[in-house]
Amino acid sequence: MPDIQKLLWPQSVAIVGASSDTRGLRGRIVQILRSHPYQGAIYPVSRSEAEVQGLKAYKSVAELPPADLAALIIPAKFVPQELENCGRAGIKAAIILSSGFAEERGETGPALQRQIQAIAKRYDMAVSGPNGEGFTNTAAALCPTFSPAMDAGDVPLLPPPARTRGQVAVISQSGGMGYAFFDHGRPKELSFRYIVTTGNEACLEASDFAEFIIDERKTRAILMLIEDLKNPATFERAAAKALRAGVPLIVNRLGASEAGARAIAAHTAARGNDAEYRALFRRYGVIESNDLDEMVDIASAFINMGERLPAGHRVAIASSSGGGGAWVADACALAGLDMPLLDDATRARIDVHLPPYGCSQNPVDVTAQAIHERGYAEFARLAAESPNVDGVILVVTGRHPRFLLEDREHLIALGRETRKPVLLWSYTRPAAVCIDLLSEAGLPLFTNVHNCARAMRVMADYRVAHEKFLKG
Amino acid sequence: MPDIQKLLWPQSVAIVGASSDTRGLRGRIVQILRSHPYQGAIYPVSRSEAEVQGLKAYKSVAELPPADLAALIIPAKFVPQELENCGRAGIKAAIILSSGFAEERGETGPALQRQIQAIAKRYDMAVSGPNGEGFTNTAAALCPTFSPAMDAGDVPLLPPPARTRGQVAVISQSGGMGYAFFDHGRPKELSFRYIVTTGNEACLEASDFAEFIIDERKTRAILMLIEDLKNPATFERAAAKALRAGVPLIVNRLGASEAGARAIAAHTAARGNDAEYRALFRRYGVIESNDLDEMVDIASAFINMGERLPAGHRVAIASSSGGGGAWVADACALAGLDMPLLDDATRARIDVHLPPYGCSQNPVDVTAQAIHERGYAEFARLAAESPNVDGVILVVTGRHPRFLLEDREHLIALGRETRKPVLLWSYTRPAAVCIDLLSEAGLPLFTNVHNCARAMRVMADYRVAHEKFLKG
Repeated sequence: MPDIQKLLWPQSVAIVGASSDTRGLRGRIVQILRSHPYQGAIYPVSRSEAEVQGLKAYKSVAELPPADLAALIIPAKFVPQELENCGRAGIKAAIILSSGFAEERGETGPALQRQIQAIAKRYDMAVSGPNGEGFTNTAAALCPTFSPAMDAGDVPLLPPPARTRGQVAVISQSGGMGYAFFDHGRPKELSFRYIVTTGNEACLEASDFAEFIIDERKTRAILMLIEDLKNPATFERAAAKALRAGVPLIVNRLGASEAGARAIAAHTAARGNDAEYRALFRRYGVIESNDLDEMVDIASAFINMGERLPAGHRVAIASSSGGGGAWVADACALAGLDMPLLDDATRARIDVHLPPYGCSQNPVDVTAQAIHERGYAEFARLAAESPNVDGVILVVTGRHPRFLLEDREHLIALGRETRKPVLLWSYTRPAAVCIDLLSEAGLPLFTNVHNCARAMRVMADYRVAHEKFLKG
Repeated sequence: MPDIQKLLWPQSVAIVGASSDTRGLRGRIVQILRSHPYQGAIYPVSRSEAEVQGLKAYKSVAELPPADLAALIIPAKFVPQELENCGRAGIKAAIILSSGFAEERGETGPALQRQIQAIAKRYDMAVSGPNGEGFTNTAAALCPTFSPAMDAGDVPLLPPPARTRGQVAVISQSGGMGYAFFDHGRPKELSFRYIVTTGNEACLEASDFAEFIIDERKTRAILMLIEDLKNPATFERAAAKALRAGVPLIVNRLGASEAGARAIAAHTAARGNDAEYRALFRRYGVIESNDLDEMVDIASAFINMGERLPAGHRVAIASSSGGGGAWVADACALAGLDMPLLDDATRARIDVHLPPYGCSQNPVDVTAQAIHERGYAEFARLAAESPNVDGVILVVTGRHPRFLLEDREHLIALGRETRKPVLLWSYTRPAAVCIDLLSEAGLPLFTNVHNCARAMRVMADYRVAHEKFLKG
């Protein structure tokens, strides 16, 4: 097995095909790499430029100092020779960002891809791609990719470590979609450890990276976008490992539709087999979703809630908006959750805080007035204590931050002390200070009600799958 | 029939229960009203304060100058007497924001609600509520509501008129949810004419407002959140009027689930009847959705596309990301859309622009390289010309604005000239300048792929329903 450690954690990176022209992809990759504080060496390889974006450039791979990783971004027809040169130079890992291989019409591209496979095997190199978009290792601040999502910009790559309860990894054949997960997760303060895009998977597959990442034990959830499983046995091994470790795999498999299947065949030469996937996914508690935002939201819920997964499907809803409570109830029913009446003792403890037009049945219509007087956290805490429920969905409005901010200490205590999962849905777009506060409190905040209900559901199902697997 | 014109377009508004304390709802309503440039008179009525937030206050309704509208925000038990006083004073319209009526446990609240109904009838007053959250008329800059979504803030209530192709109205029993539509639509540059929240609907119903709004002929789509239809015949009349006028009603009916039904009964004393609703909705081409963002996105698609609705279910997909194209294809299949292969002539016209690893079948995998060279608009235009398709979904990345901005003139021409609908999905969060440009171009931009596919589908279905209705 080639060494993925060398690929994801290189001490030095050669960019074969590097350019000074930052309008093209060959210049962008260098620009993006350099915009982050990667501590290793960066070696541009260019036949035409002596210096690339302020870095000394090398004429050829043969002239390079020792390097761990080569990123190849040159026309497809030159890739086999340069990969061979890398092998000869002792470079043990490569990512191939060029297109024009198995996904190309005709015979040339597929033949080039077979050559890559042979060379990788001969030199025992860890090779990712071709037709990928590179990867990101945030801990190393290493971004050998031309993805615009990795522009350094004003926002740090990671949210503050103090409030990070765990990290996620993305593994995606599609580069655009892989980095889209990162792009959607950032405003939700989701902390990404890796984004790995694998393209055609001529050599290394998504499952290989998944195994490496699970073995490393630093990642708490994995988002995967799969076009096909080159090797179902490899996926099965990774999925079993993940389930044993309690690391949920949240997966969308593209190509479920006929046109989608046509698209993935053209995109990464993928061929799907629906029945086989379904059976595998069911066996290993793999969480399926076909919505990008939902997948990110589910990952965030797992990371914030940790071990506190619902023991069943029974949910209490507490809402300052009566209409909002009804909307969540409908969404929970669609997600296959139950909303039993709360027990009398819990209702009595809630009723003392409610005006006569409030209602403690379930959904608990807390009313705006009671929120003004008691805040949000108290009602989630009371509802969670009901023996009739396994989790709580709290409906808030994060637009006007006052009521959340005034409830700050209680929300933080709730996030720390609750033993049942508490998920929040804000029916208005939350203010930045509210996102900040709830991130600090470790309470997952949803802006889409269906994502919130679905997250509760899949967390409950995952707990069952995990416990069943551990019992054998 | 009482005069809704007086309610939505008053020359003067009395706030009965106005307060200087802006921490409470009675102070917030005055504060919000005054933060917008409403040109009519505002008359606070307060038993305890001679001046409210800089405005002369009146001791009682009897002492008021002539007023068109009264907003009542006082304890429920005082509402009937004050409404009576309004009737005597010749005020022809009232909104009741107080809670504690039919939605309250026990007999007192429901009895109070019956008194309101009798008084409204006796004086032929247009009365909305109780238990509502007021309304907003953006054209009059009139916001008698305590909704935090109506804080003036830094963002104008409306996007620039020059790029507004039409306006939407929201009608919702729930105040929180009604204003949530506005809150979600704002960053999408959706222009709202009215947000009307109707609460318990003791007198005026959502359907009455819908009829008024359709008759006015200034609103191009209506978002409705219904807890129950007090009077199905009224709804039927409004729905028929809307369909005749080509104004889509985009409706979520809460309470479809058992717990949801419990919630709406407690919230606005609503009782649903599922079969009856379904039949009515089907008959009048009412568009159902249970997702807030999706509803807003659908409204935006209708407004931007106007008469250019798809003549069938056949969609072309053009994507710079192969994975993105496959994702859209799967979403379209789920939405019941077809993605036929493009005809040979169209494919030939597209192929000349594609590198060998691109693909013109459908989805069209344009590749990032071809986008760099030709921009986005050209591929949407070419795909739309295929006789095999009724609409186009164009997949873009709005994160890095360069490629959209460089394609500016073509995108604007595309929005103006296309005769088939073109919807855009950005798989990354779009930069503000991109939202701005596409709004100017009149091309609806989606950030959720399923909303995009669903919008195309419901537009096609609406066209069929509309044409069938006009033929009789």
